Amino acid sequence: MVSVILLAAGRSVRFGEGRIKTLVPLAGRPLVLHSLQRFLDHPEVDEVVLVTPPEQDLPWRNFLLRDLDCPKLRPAVPGGAERQDSVRAGLAAVAAESELLLVHDSARPLVPARVISDVLGAARERGAALPVLRPADTIKQLDGARVGATLDRAHLGAAQTPQGFRTALYREALAAADRDGFLATDDVALVERLGREVAWVEGARENLKVTTPEDLDFLEWWLARPAAEKEGAR
Amino acid sequence: MVSVILLAAGRSVRFGEGRIKTLVPLAGRPLVLHSLQRFLDHPEVDEVVLVTPPEQDLPWRNFLLRDLDCPKLRPAVPGGAERQDSVRAGLAAVAAESELLLVHDSARPLVPARVISDVLGAARERGAALPVLRPADTIKQLDGARVGATLDRAHLGAAQTPQGFRTALYREALAAADRDGFLATDDVALVERLGREVAWVEGARENLKVTTPEDLDFLEWWLARPAAEKEGAR
Repeated sequence: MVSVILLAAGRSVRFGEGRIKTLVPLAGRPLVLHSLQRFLDHPEVDEVVLVTPPEQDLPWRNFLLRDLDCPKLRPAVPGGAERQDSVRAGLAAVAAESELLLVHDSARPLVPARVISDVLGAARERGAALPVLRPADTIKQLDGARVGATLDRAHLGAAQTPQGFRTALYREALAAADRDGFLATDDVALVERLGREVAWVEGARENLKVTTPEDLDFLEWWLARPAAEKEGAR
Repeated sequence: MVSVILLAAGRSVRFGEGRIKTLVPLAGRPLVLHSLQRFLDHPEVDEVVLVTPPEQDLPWRNFLLRDLDCPKLRPAVPGGAERQDSVRAGLAAVAAESELLLVHDSARPLVPARVISDVLGAARERGAALPVLRPADTIKQLDGARVGATLDRAHLGAAQTPQGFRTALYREALAAADRDGFLATDDVALVERLGREVAWVEGARENLKVTTPEDLDFLEWWLARPAAEKEGAR
């Protein structure tokens, strides 16, 4: 059984103080509905738990999910103050018999089905996996206003989501992090710190995290490209 | 006196075997003419040396430069087998009284005037400088098929061009690299290895290096945006 935790609890400063970023429209629909649809449509996904902003659980459910009628969609759960609190709330709502888990940031609305499949395959085989985008440019270490060193970009990757896990491993890693008071910027870091293997697969450029209005412009354009249809974008 | 070496000697595998990437059209004009125009138009730039593919110097000059009538434009010079050979050829054509030098990759056609100014200002003050783009995602170190570690992205930047130098410092750094047989992936690395200071300024997203046809699509879109005009893109 494959479970998905879709995180939509974050707020955005760039899109207006206190505004809920994943409600910002892309091609006429809130960001969060794009990624939600992609997971619901994926043949390997069995259940999706949406994690909503803590104080707005009920309006969210009513507004967002009213037109969705899919047996894979579980009741939404309210998130917490920190990202890790939201993941924990989502995990509590995942089925006990879940074998594989994906954690996805709903501010990445255009995740391709190919990336979802690849992450699942690698997580099943190796325990934990994430998609990465290889940098096109040389990467420099910055030391204040100076350049410290040039890194070897052949060995670097920009982390995307969904990040995938054997569900039992993720439960173990999150419990260990909570016990130790460790807060991570992404989910595989919880597994990395246990010294367990994390695999990587190729990410996708259009799987970017919407951070600025310009990112949104880019994704509008991406969806409108003639090639978008044959790539399975929708 | 401010000099610019504009590198257009590279070939592209992705755009067709042996095809000269910087002749690929963007908004109807070869890539190289976009960046060339931006440097010629910049009020602080005094001379531009275009470095062309070694075996195609003459046709290039005829084709590319025939409509340009700008006293800042020096005769094009043929490049060499390696990037560093091309920079060396360009440097030999730079005026002896040059004080500041910019080295730019012509596959970055949409370099904004603001980036050129900022790099020049920092190079004048600190000796060497480059524009960097801060990563939006967590950066992972990759160790074969595994994730090695999570880096602190607050201290990372993706290197862009133009990279700027006090001309005398760059001459010294290139001579040292040649003497030691050191080949770098970018120009400031020649200064870094001498332990001399390299400063960084904010790069720009549209200042990307065209590597795939998709990059070209992105820049076509960028130029067509309603905001492009007021940003000074042309």
